[in-house]
Parts: sequence; structure tokens; C-alpha cells
Amino acid sequence: MSELKNSNRLKVVLVGTRNPLNIGAAARAMSNFGFLELRVVNPYEVAFREARSAVGGSPVLKSAKEYATLAEAVADCSLVVGTTAARKRGMNHTMRVLKDGAAVIRRRLTKSTVALVFGSEKRGLSNEDLSHCHWLMHIPTREVHLSMNLGQSVAVCLYELIRAATPVKTEKSSSAARAAELERITTLLFEMLDQSGYVQPRTRISTEEKTRRLLRRISLSAPDAELLLGMLRQISWKLNSGSSE
Amino acid sequence: MSELKNSNRLKVVLVGTRNPLNIGAAARAMSNFGFLELRVVNPYEVAFREARSAVGGSPVLKSAKEYATLAEAVADCSLVVGTTAARKRGMNHTMRVLKDGAAVIRRRLTKSTVALVFGSEKRGLSNEDLSHCHWLMHIPTREVHLSMNLGQSVAVCLYELIRAATPVKTEKSSSAARAAELERITTLLFEMLDQSGYVQPRTRISTEEKTRRLLRRISLSAPDAELLLGMLRQISWKLNSGSSE
Repeated sequence: MSELKNSNRLKVVLVGTRNPLNIGAAARAMSNFGFLELRVVNPYEVAFREARSAVGGSPVLKSAKEYATLAEAVADCSLVVGTTAARKRGMNHTMRVLKDGAAVIRRRLTKSTVALVFGSEKRGLSNEDLSHCHWLMHIPTREVHLSMNLGQSVAVCLYELIRAATPVKTEKSSSAARAAELERITTLLFEMLDQSGYVQPRTRISTEEKTRRLLRRISLSAPDAELLLGMLRQISWKLNSGSSE
Repeated sequence: MSELKNSNRLKVVLVGTRNPLNIGAAARAMSNFGFLELRVVNPYEVAFREARSAVGGSPVLKSAKEYATLAEAVADCSLVVGTTAARKRGMNHTMRVLKDGAAVIRRRLTKSTVALVFGSEKRGLSNEDLSHCHWLMHIPTREVHLSMNLGQSVAVCLYELIRAATPVKTEKSSSAARAAELERITTLLFEMLDQSGYVQPRTRISTEEKTRRLLRRISLSAPDAELLLGMLRQISWKLNSGSSE
């Protein structure tokens, strides 16, 4: 009825989901609103198998893909949006309320692939998960009862995406770098920082997350990501060659 | 956070619900969005008792009222809106798509009591039920998969009701880096590239410009510029120390 153009470019990503009913509910809402590509990261094994093999299971569920890490699940996406109930995060992410975030996502879908990421029922997205996200989005629930059921949360987000099914104008700019490319830069830069003594053993993990976040906040286009990677590779080569001349 | 004024005037009415999980899910979404009055009509007895007595059951569920007929459940309401997945009905009801219907409901809530009625999982609302409704409302799902899960359907309808009440939130974004700061990064990065053999004599000037342009295209905030400068300084120090470990 009111399907969104390019809805096939949206990938719904469920991280560490525990309850098979929630995976099933997410898949159902996806089918209702015309988003057909589900990716699950490290689901509680039994839960995923159960949900997938359920009689009458939807095509969305049957074709869902499984990944070991969030990095792999979003590798081909040029925008990664995390959903969260909390309003404050320590990682300096831009936080958008659903209707505003959905408008940005719709624009991006006109030209590239977007991942919409949902955390587990109990704990939501971890800091490591969040460090892969470009920005965060929340549903405007009440302060006294922020946290929504996972399946309902997926339904509300997807509804907002199709709500204004009027296609929006294409943004005029180079396509954004894919997550896999950003992760390559992250890895290389972190290695260089490590070699240079910037990384302290006690804060190793948080420094890696900080590096990853930095590279997601600066909005790198695909050509700029390539340029930056080339520069860092050359500097890294020099760093490893061990001569300062 | 973004509660609707007069939300207490909306009564969510579930008719003939079979699955206790769905009653629980409806109650949870109500609490998320600030609609606290739940009425259940002729629920499958066991289902309702189970849902109500569940440990950690929400206040919404505990205070839910039970009715034998829809007529009694909506007796004090001046507007009764039925929800349905089907697009055509034989009863010549006005049918509104959710966003339009919700706007009408919001206006009515400013002065009177409104019932929002949901049918059972299997059959939706019966003709008898529909005859109590002033008009009908549907969520814009796909033709090939119209029917939504009950709990998700309640969540989406209530979200639409509070959506307009969402405060326009100013995004918290740090101020952009100053040109002087960007130029410091440019200079340092270009030095490092030069030391590493990235810069060719013939294209020296254009490479410097390319570096400068790159650092202006990526929209660096002031704190991010500081972070990046710190990282580069450390790598540069290592580069100049001339030992690769």
C-alpha cells in the first residue's frame, strides 16, 4: 500500500537477541511494512533456530542471515544507526528522536545501504556495538518507562520510516564510505597509535572504541575514505621501516 | 518526556484477546507512551488472569478493567474508533489511515473521552463490534501482509498519537573546529606524509591542497579536531624517533 522506495536497502540488524518470539515479531513487522532483509548477530542459537523453523515462518525469517559480529553484519552499509532507550550516552553520539532520524534514513536510502541496529532485550547495545554506529535514535517514550519491547520497537521504527512514503530528494554528494572501509581505517589507525605509544594498556579497549567513534563521526565519503586510507598506509609503512629520514 | 495532554481520556479496549502475552505487550506499550487505562472485553479468561498476575506486571495491567460486552466498555466514551487490517468493510464506515485518524483522535481528546478498540488476534473485530464504532482506522501495511501482531499494532497506534507531541529537540552537537585548528592538523599531516614519501616533488602543491581539502570536507568538531591532533602528534613523534620497535 504505502511501501517505501528503496526499502530493500534497509537492513534490520538484531544483536544478541535472546527470545525467539522477538525475532519472529521483528520479522513480522518487517514484512508488514515491506522491509525484507533481516540480519542477526550472534543470536542465542536455539532462539534463532526455533524462530526460523517455526511453521508458517515468514519469508523474512527464512532468508535472514546470521553473522558472528556486528562489524561483519554492517560491512556493506554506509550508514549504521543504533537504537537505544537511554537518552544519555557517554560516547558523544548524535542522538535523534525517531521522526527526525527516520527522515535522515529515508534520504540516505535513496542512494545507499543503511543498517538499523537493535540490541538485546536485557541490555540493549553494548559500548562496543555502539562504537560501530554513526549516530543513535530513540523512540519518544516516557521517562518513567523508557524501555520498549523489542518487537514493538522494531514495528514503531519501521512504521515511522514508511509513514511519509513520499520519496525525498536525493542528496547531492558523493556516496558515503561503507562500514567495512571505515573499519579498515579504524584498524590501521589504531595499530599506528599502538605502535606510537598512544595506547595505554589500561584504556586499550576504550581507546579503540574512541578511535572507531571518531571515524564514524566525521562523515567520510567513499573517495575520502580511500584517500585517507592511502595516506595512513604510507605513514604506517614509514613507521614500520624504522628510519626517520 | 513527550506525553500527550489528556492522555488519560484515551481508553484502550481489547476485545476477545486470546494470548496473555499480547495483553501484556499492549499494556507495556501503553505505559511506554503514557496511556494508562486498559479495558478488556470478554478476554479468554485464563489469558487475562495470567497476564494480570504475572510477576512484575505493570500498573496498567493491574488496574485494567474487565467488561462482558463492548457496549459496556465504551459506554462513557463519546468517540469509539475501531482498528482493522482490512481496507474494505461492508458497514459503510469511514476509514482513516492511522496518521489522519490519530489527528482526529487528538483533537477529540482535548474535550472528551475516546475509546480505541482492537479485536482478537484471529478474527479482528466482529460486525457486532464494528457496529459500536464511529469510524475505523488502519495502519498502512502492505497489501500482501496486512495483518499486524496485536501488541505491535497497539504500539504503532499509540506512537502515532504521541508523535506530534514530541518536542522538537535540538541536537546536541559540538561546535565545529576553527580554521586555525584545521590548519594545524593539515600542516602536521602533510609533514608526516612528506616524511613518509607520500609527497612527490612534482605534485607537492596539489597534494598539500588535497590534504587541506580533505580536512575541511570531513566535518570535524572542535573536540574531534583536538583528539585527531593528539593522535597525529603521537604518531609523528614516533616517526621522528626513528625506531620501529
